[in-house]
Amino acid sequence: MTQPDRPRVDQRRVGRSRNRRDDILRVAFDLFAERGYRGTSLAAVADRAGLTQQGLLHYFPNKGTLLVEVLELSDELNIGRLFADSPGRPASLDQLAELVAYNVTRPGVVRSLTVLTAESLTDDHPARAYFVERYGEFRRGAAAALRAELDGRLPDGLTAEHASALLIAVMDGLQQQWLLQPDEIDMPGLFAMFLDLLRKTRERD
Amino acid sequence: MTQPDRPRVDQRRVGRSRNRRDDILRVAFDLFAERGYRGTSLAAVADRAGLTQQGLLHYFPNKGTLLVEVLELSDELNIGRLFADSPGRPASLDQLAELVAYNVTRPGVVRSLTVLTAESLTDDHPARAYFVERYGEFRRGAAAALRAELDGRLPDGLTAEHASALLIAVMDGLQQQWLLQPDEIDMPGLFAMFLDLLRKTRERD
Repeated sequence: MTQPDRPRVDQRRVGRSRNRRDDILRVAFDLFAERGYRGTSLAAVADRAGLTQQGLLHYFPNKGTLLVEVLELSDELNIGRLFADSPGRPASLDQLAELVAYNVTRPGVVRSLTVLTAESLTDDHPARAYFVERYGEFRRGAAAALRAELDGRLPDGLTAEHASALLIAVMDGLQQQWLLQPDEIDMPGLFAMFLDLLRKTRERD
Repeated sequence: MTQPDRPRVDQRRVGRSRNRRDDILRVAFDLFAERGYRGTSLAAVADRAGLTQQGLLHYFPNKGTLLVEVLELSDELNIGRLFADSPGRPASLDQLAELVAYNVTRPGVVRSLTVLTAESLTDDHPARAYFVERYGEFRRGAAAALRAELDGRLPDGLTAEHASALLIAVMDGLQQQWLLQPDEIDMPGLFAMFLDLLRKTRERD
C-alpha cells in the first residue's frame, strides 16, 4: 500500500470544513442534552464552537437543519458502529444487549437522545418525522432479530412485532429511569431479564 | 343535609382565587405539552390565561414553581382518581392496566408528562427531584402490587422490584411509541401482553 498523495489545497479545505461541521454537531449534541433543543439557541452553539453566529449559519442555515444532522451523525457513529453487518438494524438479541451495556458507558449520548425523542412530540418539531421513521425501522429490525431467534416459540398471541415494540419500550423506559437514578437501576441486568422472559416462556412451551 | 350558608365575601374571593390558580395550571400544562417547559415563557402562559405577566406573578413567583404545581395537580387529578384506595400507589395489576387504557383517552396529558419527564433530565431542571421521587414511589407501589399477586411465582431471578422497574419501563416506552404513531401502537393491548408474560411464566413454574 502506498501513501496517498498529499491532498491538494482545495481538498484540504473540504476536509477542514468537514471537521468544523463535525465539531459543531458535537457541540450541539452536548448542548441539546444539557438544555433540550428548544432551550438551546444558535448563539449558544456558535459561542461554544468558537464561531460567530454568522459563521455558524454558513454551515447550518437554521436550528432545525442542525438538529436533523446531529441525529443523523449520532446514528452513524453509534448504531452504525454496533450493527456494522446490518446497517441501522440489530442482527441479534445479543447485539441489542451489547447496545444496552454500551449505553451505560455514555450517559451523555443517552440523555441527549432521550430528551430529543420526547421533545420531538411537541408541536412543529423538526425531528418528528425523523423519530417516526427511526422507531419504525428499529421495530422492524428488532422484529427480524426476534423472528430469527424465537419465532414459532414466542408465547401464545405474541408476534415478533408485538415483542419488538415491547423490547424497544423496555430499552427506552429503562433509560429514563437509569438517567434519573443511575445507582438504583441496573439497565443491562434488567434488559437481560426481559430477554429471559421471552426466552423462558419459549422454553416452557 | 342542609344547604351550606352562602359564603361570606372573603371566602368567595378565596374560591375565585383558587379557580384562577387552577385555570393557570391547566393552561400551563397544555403549553408544556405543546412547547416543552423550556420552550414555554411565562408571558405565553399569562397571555393564554388572559392575565398580564404581573397578574400571573401574583399567583406564581416563577416558572419553576408553576411547573412543580402543575405536576402536583396532575398527579392529584389523575393518579389520585385511579388509585383512590391507595393514594399514589397502584393496588393491583388490573388497576395499572386500567390506567394504560385510560391514558389512550387523554393523549394531551400523556404527551405533557412524557415531554416533562425527559426534559427533567436536562441541567438544573426544577422538576428533577419531583420525578426522582415520583419514580421511586411508583416503583415501590408497582412492586407491592406484583408481590401481592405474583410473589414467589415470578420467574427465577426476577424479584418484584425487577419486575416493577420493567413494568414501568414498558408503560413509559409504549407511551413514547404510541404518541409518535398512535395508529400503529396498541398501547393497552401491548401492556396486557407484557403482564401476560409475567403471569404465563408463573403458570409454567
